[in-house]
Amino acid sequence: MPVLIVGSTALDSIKTQKAENPRLLGGSASHAAVAASFFAPVQMVGIVGDDFPSKYLSLYKKHRINLDGLQQVPGKTFHWAGEYEANMNNRHTLNTELGVFETFHPTLPKKYQATPYVLLANIGPDLQHHVLDQVQGSKFVAADTMDLWINIAIKDLKRLLKRIDLFVLNDSEAHQLTETDNVFTALKKLHRMGPRYVIIKKGEHGSILSGPKGLFIAPAYPLEKVVDPTGAGDSFLGGLMGYLAKSKGSIDSLLPKAMVHGAVTASFCCEGFGLKKTTLATKSQINQRVRELTRMVQV
Amino acid sequence: MPVLIVGSTALDSIKTQKAENPRLLGGSASHAAVAASFFAPVQMVGIVGDDFPSKYLSLYKKHRINLDGLQQVPGKTFHWAGEYEANMNNRHTLNTELGVFETFHPTLPKKYQATPYVLLANIGPDLQHHVLDQVQGSKFVAADTMDLWINIAIKDLKRLLKRIDLFVLNDSEAHQLTETDNVFTALKKLHRMGPRYVIIKKGEHGSILSGPKGLFIAPAYPLEKVVDPTGAGDSFLGGLMGYLAKSKGSIDSLLPKAMVHGAVTASFCCEGFGLKKTTLATKSQINQRVRELTRMVQV
Repeated sequence: MPVLIVGSTALDSIKTQKAENPRLLGGSASHAAVAASFFAPVQMVGIVGDDFPSKYLSLYKKHRINLDGLQQVPGKTFHWAGEYEANMNNRHTLNTELGVFETFHPTLPKKYQATPYVLLANIGPDLQHHVLDQVQGSKFVAADTMDLWINIAIKDLKRLLKRIDLFVLNDSEAHQLTETDNVFTALKKLHRMGPRYVIIKKGEHGSILSGPKGLFIAPAYPLEKVVDPTGAGDSFLGGLMGYLAKSKGSIDSLLPKAMVHGAVTASFCCEGFGLKKTTLATKSQINQRVRELTRMVQV
Repeated sequence: MPVLIVGSTALDSIKTQKAENPRLLGGSASHAAVAASFFAPVQMVGIVGDDFPSKYLSLYKKHRINLDGLQQVPGKTFHWAGEYEANMNNRHTLNTELGVFETFHPTLPKKYQATPYVLLANIGPDLQHHVLDQVQGSKFVAADTMDLWINIAIKDLKRLLKRIDLFVLNDSEAHQLTETDNVFTALKKLHRMGPRYVIIKKGEHGSILSGPKGLFIAPAYPLEKVVDPTGAGDSFLGGLMGYLAKSKGSIDSLLPKAMVHGAVTASFCCEGFGLKKTTLATKSQINQRVRELTRMVQV
């Protein structure tokens, strides 16, 4: 079954201690869509300017991502510039230019409106609401967020949490939103805000799912070298949703496997700048890493 | 089969944001011995002064820890005082008085010399060598360490690594010793220093084993409240070695289960000051948490 993905479609200029890469394909929807495309058909909703390189449109198409929901309009594509510290965990935003994203107010193509799996990747909660308002009869809705929305759009975000099945956020965002240092207390508080399933991402330390069946502790795929972690969280959630959409069975029984698939797609993301390595991954490489990672947690 | 444990036997004065607890039973050998005692007979080697409270001797005895190797001599027991920050991860040493520990140069009781499982808990590597010199025909030797020994006794420590089967250290110590930020690169470098098995502990994020069969990623037991993590690493390794000693099978096949048992004994340690909660744990509570934790990582 297809996955509908809405989020940012951006150009990222990324600086690390070792290299500088201007105007890479980035954005939460781009990373999530490419990751999901390994498992299920993807319908992407986003906006780009007339400066958006055609090679990036080709990349989406290579992954058979349906682009009926991608608007291209006069103006500049959303551009983010950031720099990583040597440890590759701390990063600083150098520049953000919203460009055409400021006018983004998508109307879903008719055929998108009944998509069973909906991924509201990281964008403002007002836009996440706006997309969700146009969706009918979806089976499973997941949403991501970021610290910015907790700071400036908390009301919309809290209202969103009552409308979704799965909320995914990283540990520092969870601490910020629930005002607790403890990840397990945070999970309980997050459930009380609405969602049946909550996943807290911990980067290289994996992620933790809380749901009706209790906790699932998922590992990250071990990497000796992290080149660029930008988009890893989006790749994780994209891979997870793609796996859910293509699989048969109950959400409860599928989610642990889906998280392992998400962790593996995120691992490819981290191994190159932007989407460079993700787009080169093959299904058999993904399956190989899923088998390895599953074996590594076998007690 | 019995486990021989050598390390510090100390009085710990521990301050957190919420409470102050003077002269608790502490030390690497105390924590490891009590943890191991849930699974296997323990023979402990250590030294205490004549100020050592008899109630702590009773506590060792309650756990059927053989004390033939525990010297009690005139003078003061090793005393450590520390304070935790609000997050319970960062701690500062307020005071260290070595007391009788300065003269510690143990001669193993004859019946200890053929103990099949040997745990060299955290003490100076010269003492770890001294104990190992007296052991004959041991089946499996594990050693822990700390940043202090990496700083002041690196030569002895590196020589020790060539004599042991399992080396256990935490992530910051691994980074310090191998001069790499990456945990998986660190594991490879640590193997090259000698040990067939290496475990890097990551506190609340669990631990990672590297051995001939590859990696095993072990979870920590989820706790909503950490009261005092002092000794958690010692409890982990004590529980692990106790489980190995009581079990039949190859080390490779037992180690993942042993790590889960170690994680569970460490979880009790974290729930109270000093050994307060560990000593109250029952075998059935431990087994219950082992079942829970095993289920939480089941893909």
